[in-house]
Amino acid sequence: MKALARHLLLELKGCRHDRLNDLDFIRDTLRDAALAAGATIIKDSFYQFAPYGISGVVIIAESHLSIHTWPEFDYAAVDIFTCGMTTNPEKAAGLMVQRLESKDAQLREVKRGLMAEVPTVYPKQKAGTRA
Amino acid sequence: MKALARHLLLELKGCRHDRLNDLDFIRDTLRDAALAAGATIIKDSFYQFAPYGISGVVIIAESHLSIHTWPEFDYAAVDIFTCGMTTNPEKAAGLMVQRLESKDAQLREVKRGLMAEVPTVYPKQKAGTRA
Repeated sequence: MKALARHLLLELKGCRHDRLNDLDFIRDTLRDAALAAGATIIKDSFYQFAPYGISGVVIIAESHLSIHTWPEFDYAAVDIFTCGMTTNPEKAAGLMVQRLESKDAQLREVKRGLMAEVPTVYPKQKAGTRA
Repeated sequence: MKALARHLLLELKGCRHDRLNDLDFIRDTLRDAALAAGATIIKDSFYQFAPYGISGVVIIAESHLSIHTWPEFDYAAVDIFTCGMTTNPEKAAGLMVQRLESKDAQLREVKRGLMAEVPTVYPKQKAGTRA
């Protein structure tokens, strides 16, 4: 079985409180994470909640990155979903841990789109578009 | 331990090929799924890839829904990430399976933001905003 995509789920606890409610900081950080992974950014969408908390998504040519922050719990949930052979999602994960200064970071990986047959040319065909 | 959010990961195989590459259909379907779950839509962002494939996200007051489609594999990866006590993400999942006519649907749930202590008033405090 081969997977069409890798999905990293990050549990970032013990983050720097102030950073989790700074919209510009969170947007820049998630975009930088996408670039650190070698991904191509298509567009992003972020939203600041009242009284606190941010949700944001960066759509990349290779799928997406998302973040939801709970400043009141010093916690952020980050997802890094990438397809193709040209990205390094661990680099995105490392950047998120570092920038949010998480003192308790957990990462788990879920393979998405497990297929019995994935043409070996598939990543090359889609290079520059989706994977 | 209590979780701040529920995250449903759907593997939708054997979907109707044509629907997976129809941007309007995918956008309407993911938005309808959010509403079926009882969520409040904040905004959405979708993108059509060449030669085929769609990525899209609906940011909701309770977190997000996302979809990535691979029409060439009759496959879609759907994530339904919800916080708070007022949503029913299983209804969103059911709607996605039905609309895409998936013949092989798998669902797994990951608890996000497991905390030793979550104030019992927390969902009420955030009602109408994030959770």
